[in-house]
Amino acid sequence: MARKNHRFTLAARPVGLPKPTDFAYEEQDLPELRDGELLVKVQYISLDPAMRGWMNEGKSYIRPIAIGELMRAIAIGSVIDSKNPKFNVGTHVLGMFGLQEYAVTNGEGVTPVDPKLAPLPVMLGTLGMPGLTAYFGLLDIGKPVAGNTVVVSGAAGAVGSVVGQIAKIHGCRTVGIAGGAAKCRYLSEIGFDAAIDYQAGDIKAALREHCPKGIDVFFDNVGGDILDAALTQLAMHARVIICGAISQYNNTTPVKGPTNYLSLLVNRASMTGMVVMDYTPRFGAAVAEMAKWMAAGKLKSREDIVPGLENFPTALLKLFSGENHGKLLLEVA
Amino acid sequence: MARKNHRFTLAARPVGLPKPTDFAYEEQDLPELRDGELLVKVQYISLDPAMRGWMNEGKSYIRPIAIGELMRAIAIGSVIDSKNPKFNVGTHVLGMFGLQEYAVTNGEGVTPVDPKLAPLPVMLGTLGMPGLTAYFGLLDIGKPVAGNTVVVSGAAGAVGSVVGQIAKIHGCRTVGIAGGAAKCRYLSEIGFDAAIDYQAGDIKAALREHCPKGIDVFFDNVGGDILDAALTQLAMHARVIICGAISQYNNTTPVKGPTNYLSLLVNRASMTGMVVMDYTPRFGAAVAEMAKWMAAGKLKSREDIVPGLENFPTALLKLFSGENHGKLLLEVA
Repeated sequence: MARKNHRFTLAARPVGLPKPTDFAYEEQDLPELRDGELLVKVQYISLDPAMRGWMNEGKSYIRPIAIGELMRAIAIGSVIDSKNPKFNVGTHVLGMFGLQEYAVTNGEGVTPVDPKLAPLPVMLGTLGMPGLTAYFGLLDIGKPVAGNTVVVSGAAGAVGSVVGQIAKIHGCRTVGIAGGAAKCRYLSEIGFDAAIDYQAGDIKAALREHCPKGIDVFFDNVGGDILDAALTQLAMHARVIICGAISQYNNTTPVKGPTNYLSLLVNRASMTGMVVMDYTPRFGAAVAEMAKWMAAGKLKSREDIVPGLENFPTALLKLFSGENHGKLLLEVA
Repeated sequence: MARKNHRFTLAARPVGLPKPTDFAYEEQDLPELRDGELLVKVQYISLDPAMRGWMNEGKSYIRPIAIGELMRAIAIGSVIDSKNPKFNVGTHVLGMFGLQEYAVTNGEGVTPVDPKLAPLPVMLGTLGMPGLTAYFGLLDIGKPVAGNTVVVSGAAGAVGSVVGQIAKIHGCRTVGIAGGAAKCRYLSEIGFDAAIDYQAGDIKAALREHCPKGIDVFFDNVGGDILDAALTQLAMHARVIICGAISQYNNTTPVKGPTNYLSLLVNRASMTGMVVMDYTPRFGAAVAEMAKWMAAGKLKSREDIVPGLENFPTALLKLFSGENHGKLLLEVA
């Protein structure tokens, strides 16, 4: 008898926040493996703000998910059957396995991971795409130098928390913007010099207070009013990294453009977009460096693990309400 | 009897478009020259979009003009009296002489110009600040390479027309955006590959037609809807130069931020502000190179000269209505 797989497909393109009915939970028989294929038992699935963009139609940095297609997601699992000589049963692997219990793949884009390097959830967070996004966005685009003031929005998130810690390792003053007192306490715990609670009042005044010499590097995950406030406080030759705009992803009205963009002119500053996939050839070296920082206690990681594949639609919403504390993951039973 | 000077001071901070009553036309006695000073008879005064920003309060790249203070302007004139050994009577000079007939100065920031190099009006246009803005903005920030598609807004203006011609000299496909058929014809005359009349219809569709491989370099003088349209058509790794935003300078509502700024992320593109004053040490070399291009017929210049200092308030408005054809200057009798 065939093994059963359970999975989520995209049932409808969400308007605003994704609703449970935008997804379909399906049962299917797993096919027999063909030559060159392997079967992965998925263990942890990464839930990322970028997923919201993949559900929309229209040109972006990646093809939109089609209606009826498996929900795209990065995940980690172990090989439980293999007709591919490159992957042995028992190996842990990372890949675009999607929102499902089991993945059948020909091994393309699948990377073996060493579970001794770090716990599997960390490999989807601080040592995974979010950590790599922080690493390359901050270092390659932000080009921070010791003494610079580095501000990051979404600072308690999977990307933001790593941005702040890497900036600190490079001798910068680090200021994080996050929502709520608990997240701001967490920023202090992991070494941010200052934390700004955007729910607590005037962001612009807080930035002025905590960045007396202006902002040299602003790493933006949020967009909207927070980006606009940061633009008013740029130092000369500031670098703004556009990594995401989570405040705008569920808009049913047009995106809020940065009203204060002429601050780029006044301050001879730049605003640059980045996509982590461009840095694939350097992932190995970056993970090795970050693993060393983790071992030395300089880079801390936190995961928010929701058990149960079937909880995907509600778990995803934690990203947009800001409820998650650390990297949000689904654990597949 | 003392020589009389006539000048414009800023009487009130304009709200929206500057009105004649925002300026005061004054007569004053010129003082006797002190040691180290020289007296300049002003001949041509440059009228620039940037002047609108100087009239506003608030932090910018230059101190705002105070109420009651001489209206700031770059101008060219000749030395008619001198107690400064560095400047002889008869020398032509360029400086921040302001909106007046005569300027008394200690020579700081005053540069002798050679009237044999080019007609004086050209030295305030193509071989002056606008030309230098085009030169450094395009080459240093835009970094065009042969075969790139370079788009410029405000293309028939003093900066934009030079941007397009320098891009052409560097082997780029050049597309200009301007208002009205006459300006678009002018763009063809000076060698643009395509001209888009923003008054004639859908800018986005026109950009798609004329930039089939996307926009590699967008040099923006205009902001607003034109910037937003250009952002939708960026090529990968595009460079957007923020030189100005004339469509927004007279706003009484907040500046329109670029709604499509997330195109920077999708296309790994950058948006960078520039101020020409940062390149002062390289002005001489740039003017020399541009003068060679002019002599070779590769760089054409056009000036729109309004006679009469007293016509300043109405002449200035031509910049914002788009009525001027080429570099706008006042000729002082």
